[in-house]
Amino acid sequence: MSLLEDTCGAIAAVDRTVAIAAQRLLDNKTKPRGSLGRLEELACRVAAIRGTPAPALPVKAIVVMGADHGVAEEGVSAYPQEVTRQMLLNFARGGAAINVLARQAGARLTVVDVGVREPLPPLPEIRTRRIGPGTRNFVLGPAMSRDQARAALECGIEIAQELIVEGLTLLGIGDMGIANTTAASALTAAFTGASVEAVTGRGTGIDDAGLQHKIDVIGRALTINRPDAGDALDVVAKLGGFEIAGLAGVVLGCAAGRTPVMLDGFITGAAALVAARLHPDVAGYLLASHQSVEAGHGVILRALGQQPLLDLGLRLGEGTGAALAMPLVDAALHILHDMATFAAAGVSDSGA
Amino acid sequence: MSLLEDTCGAIAAVDRTVAIAAQRLLDNKTKPRGSLGRLEELACRVAAIRGTPAPALPVKAIVVMGADHGVAEEGVSAYPQEVTRQMLLNFARGGAAINVLARQAGARLTVVDVGVREPLPPLPEIRTRRIGPGTRNFVLGPAMSRDQARAALECGIEIAQELIVEGLTLLGIGDMGIANTTAASALTAAFTGASVEAVTGRGTGIDDAGLQHKIDVIGRALTINRPDAGDALDVVAKLGGFEIAGLAGVVLGCAAGRTPVMLDGFITGAAALVAARLHPDVAGYLLASHQSVEAGHGVILRALGQQPLLDLGLRLGEGTGAALAMPLVDAALHILHDMATFAAAGVSDSGA
Repeated sequence: MSLLEDTCGAIAAVDRTVAIAAQRLLDNKTKPRGSLGRLEELACRVAAIRGTPAPALPVKAIVVMGADHGVAEEGVSAYPQEVTRQMLLNFARGGAAINVLARQAGARLTVVDVGVREPLPPLPEIRTRRIGPGTRNFVLGPAMSRDQARAALECGIEIAQELIVEGLTLLGIGDMGIANTTAASALTAAFTGASVEAVTGRGTGIDDAGLQHKIDVIGRALTINRPDAGDALDVVAKLGGFEIAGLAGVVLGCAAGRTPVMLDGFITGAAALVAARLHPDVAGYLLASHQSVEAGHGVILRALGQQPLLDLGLRLGEGTGAALAMPLVDAALHILHDMATFAAAGVSDSGA
Repeated sequence: MSLLEDTCGAIAAVDRTVAIAAQRLLDNKTKPRGSLGRLEELACRVAAIRGTPAPALPVKAIVVMGADHGVAEEGVSAYPQEVTRQMLLNFARGGAAINVLARQAGARLTVVDVGVREPLPPLPEIRTRRIGPGTRNFVLGPAMSRDQARAALECGIEIAQELIVEGLTLLGIGDMGIANTTAASALTAAFTGASVEAVTGRGTGIDDAGLQHKIDVIGRALTINRPDAGDALDVVAKLGGFEIAGLAGVVLGCAAGRTPVMLDGFITGAAALVAARLHPDVAGYLLASHQSVEAGHGVILRALGQQPLLDLGLRLGEGTGAALAMPLVDAALHILHDMATFAAAGVSDSGA
């Protein structure tokens, strides 16, 4: 047995009875029952994941994985491929949106190079776990070998395991990789059977002609690779990116470690879809931070049975949506811990 | 001239040119243009309100006003009237949802008794600015006199002025008052011309028969009082609550002081509607935290031209939605201040 199979073997469904116990605690707090809406649901979901009705306030990290994509050479992005590497350096120096928002959310940032084309200089802020110098152009054949897909998944599992051992109890995930919306659209079409048109959007900002070209490229990739939707490793090897496979590994590691994982947008959604196709109980460990403007994201969220917390028109990635939603988890758990009960506060309870 | 007229005279439209300057700053940050969606819009709106393209991080307070409503004797709420007073005591002891969420948002909490039926004991955590021992039952005639409405508005203006002088730069508003959704529905129908059915909901949790009774009560109140929609002081005097009029005053004080005011749900929306009918430029100073499940809230937000930031199924009040949305203002301004530009970070700019 390898790490991947061991990890999948350790994943069990979340405990719904704990969610009910958490709701009972909330129902005694000084407010009309259910009046905090999705905040109450969030508290109950985290309780079910952690296996205790009043889980401790989360210790938070965001794992951002960066990698390059061979399909970028088809001209599917508004940005040149160099930007992946430039942005990882920006993450290291603290100047990107995810640095700013993770800091505000009180989340540690873990940046991983899982396969930027040109290696980065050694930097204390970036972990180097390179699977290769970017994937191959999947219009010409598989993006990576099955062994590379497994290696990327296991890299993500290891990082999740390390963070959980260090005491982190809520992981967010984020991505960086020029052309990775092309990979995420291809994965979404392959896994869900949705049409390429329905799951392909403008990414960082291509025009109408660029969008049509991107749809054509994805269609050709699906025709040439013929991914087997019943074999998630086959699909992610043929159409994935190293960062998408790596983040799928983080999701598996979280599920095995009973740790909630806050998704970001379209790319991390595709990673969660890979993980959920590797083990069906993964979905219970996911928290969907936001509804992205990318066309395929809604398809993924429906396939995963997730309702997003925020809808702010975001389309940046990097884990920014995950960082923005993390304070809602803090809020939900503070409500569970810190609010007075009707009895303690001497407030009349209508039972409503 | 009185304080009310002076304050309205000091309100001017927000400066849209400053919003454009803020967007220009955002467009140089290392991310695709517009990719932070409504967070960018929020930064620009706060910039326009404050009159500077990169306003300082906000110093936050939430003003919660509590008062009783004579119409409670019609049996329109799931809770007994005593709960208003009990909850103000709960606020003073720190056990309510708004205490928990304001603390997490880093916002000071200012609780004001503007007219709970039975006076509270003197408490350092509660300001006493009582207009009366609750309003009269507005099914039998006006809820308050025109002088009382003015006094409540001016009380709110004074509190906003004090907080602004103390250095607060973002005020949230919240309410407590058993039966105040009945008052808010009546105000919304009177101001917007919407049908009573379209703006009346279940409040803290009444059943179908209770909802029909509440609709009947509001219809009778409108028939008996015949509020003049062109005279906002007349409408709020006849149908308002002291806390609704007081919070409308806070909104006016914020607009006059170029300070953004974060609304909560239905009740604070009704207060903002009163303020916006007293001065049309008020709307530019409003930030809508969330979409409440109360039926009339959407009608109010459309009338005010506001799009809510969150949609979490909340229906608690107290300012809880305002507290939950405040971190988004922090995030938006951190993005403006702390992100690197393309030039500084050496990241290629596609112009997309």
